[in-house]
Amino acid sequence: MAQAVAGPEIERLIQLLARLPGLGPRSARRAALHLIAKREQLLGPLSEAMRVANERIVVCETCGNVDTSDPCTICRDPGRDSSIIVVVEGVSDLWALERAGALRARYHVLGGVLSALDGVRPEHLNVDALVKRAAEPGVREIILALNATVDGQTTAHYLTDLVSHLPVRVTRLAHGVPVGGELDYLDEGTLSAALRQRTAF
Amino acid sequence: MAQAVAGPEIERLIQLLARLPGLGPRSARRAALHLIAKREQLLGPLSEAMRVANERIVVCETCGNVDTSDPCTICRDPGRDSSIIVVVEGVSDLWALERAGALRARYHVLGGVLSALDGVRPEHLNVDALVKRAAEPGVREIILALNATVDGQTTAHYLTDLVSHLPVRVTRLAHGVPVGGELDYLDEGTLSAALRQRTAF
Repeated sequence: MAQAVAGPEIERLIQLLARLPGLGPRSARRAALHLIAKREQLLGPLSEAMRVANERIVVCETCGNVDTSDPCTICRDPGRDSSIIVVVEGVSDLWALERAGALRARYHVLGGVLSALDGVRPEHLNVDALVKRAAEPGVREIILALNATVDGQTTAHYLTDLVSHLPVRVTRLAHGVPVGGELDYLDEGTLSAALRQRTAF
Repeated sequence: MAQAVAGPEIERLIQLLARLPGLGPRSARRAALHLIAKREQLLGPLSEAMRVANERIVVCETCGNVDTSDPCTICRDPGRDSSIIVVVEGVSDLWALERAGALRARYHVLGGVLSALDGVRPEHLNVDALVKRAAEPGVREIILALNATVDGQTTAHYLTDLVSHLPVRVTRLAHGVPVGGELDYLDEGTLSAALRQRTAF
């Protein structure tokens, strides 16, 4: 705002809200007013939830997940298959896979992917810990659940080389037609992959 | 999420963030991860800014603006023209007009507009206080800066009747072509109004 009309406290709230992904200056102002209007139902509880999160959230030293305990809920869960480690780029991918609920295994969060453009090299990623985990007895499979982007696939190749001396199977997610997807809208690469990797009906 | 994978504290943070306007479940998860990743630069400060806002923000009893003081910064500002009261639907409209910076007057926040559909009647709005302020000596003009919607204009007519016994001039915002707007994209109502209210060049 050109001039402060609402006191520095509200200005500061707006400025910080505008730094959330998905909010710009305009929607941050709307969000601030919404918070102020719903003070008891939203502003108070959200402020408290953030304080608690800030105080209690830790990164799991085993897998790189964020949680309020270390090891995290997933690493501590005795009902999960310890022989499979699903490698993901970030925590949001871990959450997405958990929502799918297709596999109850362990995870390993890389914290990014290799990128020549962004200058991300192996030492910036949680790679050494992965190799150490892959060498543990009982681990049979590493599933590389990385994005189907150039950087994601480069990283997948790099990791495959890195654990090639170990007695583990390295797999990656299947390429193909998304469920509910229309062929007409799919790119040639996806269609070719879906044809090559066709399955028995 | 189908099952909690990240502890109840993070779940709660996501649920509350999803209630902000402009954020849905998906972007709330992204926002939560962004907050956790930028803990010191963002999560801590935002949590604190919300706590301070929750503790200190009050609604100005004079005009209905939100601020950390009552009367608010605008009502206390001796440099403003007290003879003009700009009537707005909400605080966001007040902020928008202040950003335009065209007029340094007082405001009056109605807290909504009359709406038969939503069951908003005069007693739900900050109307009595407006009539009282309009009757104060020294007040010469009431500018109805309400949205150019049916409800906004209904409310404008209602308010005009309500203060018609007072020696104040009641005005409303001009209709016309938005600055930077292209005629081709404007509706007929706006174009007709812009023609009727044409000004000397």
